[in-house]
Amino acid sequence: MGSTFGRAFRITTWGESHGGGVGVVLDGCPPGLEISAEEIQIELDRRKPGQSKITTQRKEDDRIEIHSGLFEGKTLGTPISMMVWNSDARSKDYEEMRTKYRPSHADYTYQQKYGIRNWTGGGRASARETIGRVAAGAVARKLLAQDYGIDIIAYVRQVHTLGINIDPISVTREQVEANIARVPDAEMAEKIIDRIDAARKDGDSLGGVVEAVAHNTPPGWGEPIFDKLEADLAKAMLSLPACKGFESGSGFAGISMTGTAHNDPFYNDGSGVHTRTNYSGGIQGGISNGEPIIIRTAFKPTATILAEQETVDVDGKATTLKGRGRHDPCVLPRAVPIVEAMMALVLADHCLRQRGQRG
Amino acid sequence: MGSTFGRAFRITTWGESHGGGVGVVLDGCPPGLEISAEEIQIELDRRKPGQSKITTQRKEDDRIEIHSGLFEGKTLGTPISMMVWNSDARSKDYEEMRTKYRPSHADYTYQQKYGIRNWTGGGRASARETIGRVAAGAVARKLLAQDYGIDIIAYVRQVHTLGINIDPISVTREQVEANIARVPDAEMAEKIIDRIDAARKDGDSLGGVVEAVAHNTPPGWGEPIFDKLEADLAKAMLSLPACKGFESGSGFAGISMTGTAHNDPFYNDGSGVHTRTNYSGGIQGGISNGEPIIIRTAFKPTATILAEQETVDVDGKATTLKGRGRHDPCVLPRAVPIVEAMMALVLADHCLRQRGQRG
Amino acid sequence: MGSTFGRAFRITTWGESHGGGVGVVLDGCPPGLEISAEEIQIELDRRKPGQSKITTQRKEDDRIEIHSGLFEGKTLGTPISMMVWNSDARSKDYEEMRTKYRPSHADYTYQQKYGIRNWTGGGRASARETIGRVAAGAVARKLLAQDYGIDIIAYVRQVHTLGINIDPISVTREQVEANIARVPDAEMAEKIIDRIDAARKDGDSLGGVVEAVAHNTPPGWGEPIFDKLEADLAKAMLSLPACKGFESGSGFAGISMTGTAHNDPFYNDGSGVHTRTNYSGGIQGGISNGEPIIIRTAFKPTATILAEQETVDVDGKATTLKGRGRHDPCVLPRAVPIVEAMMALVLADHCLRQRGQRG
Amino acid sequence: MGSTFGRAFRITTWGESHGGGVGVVLDGCPPGLEISAEEIQIELDRRKPGQSKITTQRKEDDRIEIHSGLFEGKTLGTPISMMVWNSDARSKDYEEMRTKYRPSHADYTYQQKYGIRNWTGGGRASARETIGRVAAGAVARKLLAQDYGIDIIAYVRQVHTLGINIDPISVTREQVEANIARVPDAEMAEKIIDRIDAARKDGDSLGGVVEAVAHNTPPGWGEPIFDKLEADLAKAMLSLPACKGFESGSGFAGISMTGTAHNDPFYNDGSGVHTRTNYSGGIQGGISNGEPIIIRTAFKPTATILAEQETVDVDGKATTLKGRGRHDPCVLPRAVPIVEAMMALVLADHCLRQRGQRG
Repeated sequence: MGSTFGRAFRITTWGESHGGGVGVVLDGCPPGLEISAEEIQIELDRRKPGQSKITTQRKEDDRIEIHSGLFEGKTLGTPISMMVWNSDARSKDYEEMRTKYRPSHADYTYQQKYGIRNWTGGGRASARETIGRVAAGAVARKLLAQDYGIDIIAYVRQVHTLGINIDPISVTREQVEANIARVPDAEMAEKIIDRIDAARKDGDSLGGVVEAVAHNTPPGWGEPIFDKLEADLAKAMLSLPACKGFESGSGFAGISMTGTAHNDPFYNDGSGVHTRTNYSGGIQGGISNGEPIIIRTAFKPTATILAEQETVDVDGKATTLKGRGRHDPCVLPRAVPIVEAMMALVLADHCLRQRGQRG
Repeated sequence: MGSTFGRAFRITTWGESHGGGVGVVLDGCPPGLEISAEEIQIELDRRKPGQSKITTQRKEDDRIEIHSGLFEGKTLGTPISMMVWNSDARSKDYEEMRTKYRPSHADYTYQQKYGIRNWTGGGRASARETIGRVAAGAVARKLLAQDYGIDIIAYVRQVHTLGINIDPISVTREQVEANIARVPDAEMAEKIIDRIDAARKDGDSLGGVVEAVAHNTPPGWGEPIFDKLEADLAKAMLSLPACKGFESGSGFAGISMTGTAHNDPFYNDGSGVHTRTNYSGGIQGGISNGEPIIIRTAFKPTATILAEQETVDVDGKATTLKGRGRHDPCVLPRAVPIVEAMMALVLADHCLRQRGQRG
Repeated sequence: MGSTFGRAFRITTWGESHGGGVGVVLDGCPPGLEISAEEIQIELDRRKPGQSKITTQRKEDDRIEIHSGLFEGKTLGTPISMMVWNSDARSKDYEEMRTKYRPSHADYTYQQKYGIRNWTGGGRASARETIGRVAAGAVARKLLAQDYGIDIIAYVRQVHTLGINIDPISVTREQVEANIARVPDAEMAEKIIDRIDAARKDGDSLGGVVEAVAHNTPPGWGEPIFDKLEADLAKAMLSLPACKGFESGSGFAGISMTGTAHNDPFYNDGSGVHTRTNYSGGIQGGISNGEPIIIRTAFKPTATILAEQETVDVDGKATTLKGRGRHDPCVLPRAVPIVEAMMALVLADHCLRQRGQRG
Repeated sequence: MGSTFGRAFRITTWGESHGGGVGVVLDGCPPGLEISAEEIQIELDRRKPGQSKITTQRKEDDRIEIHSGLFEGKTLGTPISMMVWNSDARSKDYEEMRTKYRPSHADYTYQQKYGIRNWTGGGRASARETIGRVAAGAVARKLLAQDYGIDIIAYVRQVHTLGINIDPISVTREQVEANIARVPDAEMAEKIIDRIDAARKDGDSLGGVVEAVAHNTPPGWGEPIFDKLEADLAKAMLSLPACKGFESGSGFAGISMTGTAHNDPFYNDGSGVHTRTNYSGGIQGGISNGEPIIIRTAFKPTATILAEQETVDVDGKATTLKGRGRHDPCVLPRAVPIVEAMMALVLADHCLRQRGQRG
């Protein structure tokens, strides 16, 4: 239990990384939305492995199949079932994991929780699980773009100690996609690519920060108390593999300010009410205020490294383990479309919830 | 909609800060748990206003009334309805807010969302809403303590630019309660109290970080994918008023480490499997691993300040507003029992969910 | 767990019959709805005990208190907390039930489920629990009436072997309220009142059927697959104390027809599409079709009777029990406003869900 | 929205009758349960079309594919994704339905609700949707049988005016499967088969009643107030295509009894507490009491008939329609495994919920 996200726009993902395939059922998408497999595939291609030298070399085409919920190019309002097949699963890479727990992976905790685990791969803890999220997220984005002109743009803001300082609302999709690191700063992108590549050669791994912006969100979305927009965004992000932190607006940095400096004054520019600053990150009292929504998500260094590590086996005996298999030395570049998808899913959910209340 | 939290151990809070009262219905508490109003009152007293010179001076006794779900000192397994009455509500302090939006408060967004708001106070966005959480959290803590020996300890780690460096697992409840700032370091506590007091005199406000530890959580709690322990903890924390950030384990700081340093090696000390370091914060793959669970929560500077601020009125016209009313210059000391309560609610929920799966 | 009903228009009830009180929290009611305590009280008065010679003589005023969610006569869009206090609880009537299980009551099953029960009254299994439903149902009715002109009318169609044959869509609220049996047929009402009165004098009890009609429901409400309108109505009705059966449209009787006779032909009367017959009861494929929604609910004879009955005590030993306390010899007349309330809650829920999907 | 059923043992079905396929995701099945595709296929074969002369002649093998959640023959505790492909879809049979609404089908209401529909077949309203329920139900049955020895047996009790009078607890699976009508009475089965066959030749259709019994359910399952066992069973049954009625225990017939006769006296036969009669149908106060659970479900005559019928087209204009396509003249025989599956799903859900509460 726990594979379902969202209340009004709701996804249920399924699949192990080395089972038959991975997929998603999306229930609650309004009828009549035009969407094609091609549009969804674009987002999956941004997520797929092997897309560049700094991602895992596992070869998966990740071709989306849509089994229900569409008719003549439009959504029916019924569940949309989508999946991709697993093809390049090398379970023999995992033979050693049958009996040994990889440090900081989910092997040990899955075994403790379920008493059984699919040791032939990462199982549900694999990043392959996010395929369903990205596919459903593509539908959510279409809905948000069409009905509200909402545009969600995420990018890599930091990898290891290398970060950029950029105005989030200025970043374009083109800038993000201009390099394989998805860092909207050509110079820093080069450095980050080199840093990731070096880590890969060392058999080491790196973490970082993804920043995401949602433009044009109408005011009024988000449901106090527990389903505040920030609360659902935080849950969405912390549900991602390797995510260890979330902040919105000024986040942790806002703490060093005083209230006088931190408050966002309201003004009216003629077109409507806005705030002079946006330390709130577009959310006040858990509800969107019409300004750009800005969040940041921290990803830890990937747990899979090639160095020999101390660990225990399934009998609790001391042993060592050397990582194998094909993994990302840094998940950040591929995390970008995933963060965007989760943000879209949260916004689509709250969009429908608000419509239900206010018509 | 949005006033319900938890799946198996579930609370629904209700009440405006200046309506009749505030309360909670807790459904899903197992039968037979011994709990008294006095035990719950202890936690409410830690949360209540007017408890020290650095909190709001609003006078509320916040006496808990329990209307259902208990019989002869034990839970019945039926909904536990608890409430406190509002008494010291000075709505006239809010007269100006009838027509003006306070910057960085929820006034504007509530109006946009609902088209109506109870302007005579903070409404649902008031910290009074958290009373129900703390009451229900006290029941959750009792359950966790009795069945598993779980002990949850939170404390103020930072206020504005003043922080402490302390080993989270060493902190005791006595240290936390030893001073009104709830900073488990006597010397820094004094400085922080002075800093808050100075902000109060300036009519300004401060933010900070609460750190929380759950000792003795068994391995196996948390539900991949979307109900990972970190995901639900993040949602719980970001649902708190003024919260803008969450991290678990190494959090944002872990980014500057490489995987080799960040991974937590497993070892067996004879009593069972443990990790040498705990950068994971007791959670791997979204599931508890038996190590102490460690999280941090960022609270922004309180939005209510006494300086004159630029804003707009309900007609969108430019105006200014000077804060009034009795408010906390810094929510951190009172946030400590609230963070503990939310952590307890998340753990109790996952406790019952895991019991359902594994008996 | 299990005290919550509805998804978008959601109630949580609480309270034991002999605890402090009983109540409800309604979350999801749209903002801006005008509603007063008086309007709600009208429905509670139709439900309250002691209203006539054929109901229980327990004296309860059942005065509604509203603690949140309203402001200046309108809903805020926040949770509406409502309760009534218990006053005339004679727990000593229940002393014998401390150790003996009443046949066909919930005593035994509550003890088996929870290992504890409030034996001083019916606890949650008491009909007092339905107070919260009726209060929330009154809000739902107001919403449905105001926005769609929906009118829900229930009445007693049968008691024991005495039934009426009436066209459901012709029944008016005035007819129903014209007699204490709530049978919209003056002659049969007399007979039924006599029959109930005779049962009361014999210390016996009777069951019956409530029929309910919702006029003016728009087409398109109800959510395939599992939240079909009939499925949610069935759940709503079977959640009522003493309810053992549900049917919609032709129900069980429709079985003796063939498809040719049973199908409802569509036609257009100029004002729109209608069906010539309404064996579907206004619902096709789980979705309203615009015709009157018609359901019937079966209530068993009340379990409390005054005859001596064979039973066992809490140690499983054979014993006998003679009923005491003040109870309804027949729940049907008081069930009418309860059935109406549940029907209103289901429709309000699906109203909001459909709005969310179609705007 | 509405394609999910269950809280702790939860299914989400997807698929149109003439799309790519139909399937289900089951989340919440405990880990370690041994289950094979073959066991699931047995139940699907009982449900599949073309199995006898009295069912639809649509040819579908309905071979189950399991894509996730199993490993080495056991459940992983992760979502189990199962599907069958659609193969024998003759959409041209439906060409006329593009513009005309079939009376008493879901064509009109789907169009009103969604503004779009897959007219090339029954879409989600087709009985094919129940494939996922039967597959998931087979897993539920295995769990219940293994952990509690629960055995669920359903059978056709009545078709049109032909019914049997049988003691529900005496019926065996062998008796049910002994004839194609699934009537556990050889003589009446013949009559019923003839009656159905006659209706088929006439292009007419018939309804009936399925009765179901769950043996060996432990006391204590079911969650007052709204998730009473009967409430969830009622919802489960009314969510089935063509279902118009539900009753448990004495149901509608119990109304003609008085309380004195209807109450079920408790006694202790040495092995434990039982009731002398079982008018309660194994459920009191919404909670199982350990006696056999007995329910009945009414199915209307199938809407598809071959006679020419009055209807309207999508423009609301009067027209006529003659049924085509391959359909069941009577859904009852195939409904038997579906009713069993839904009953198993409800019991499995409440099994896990009770485990969560009482460990």
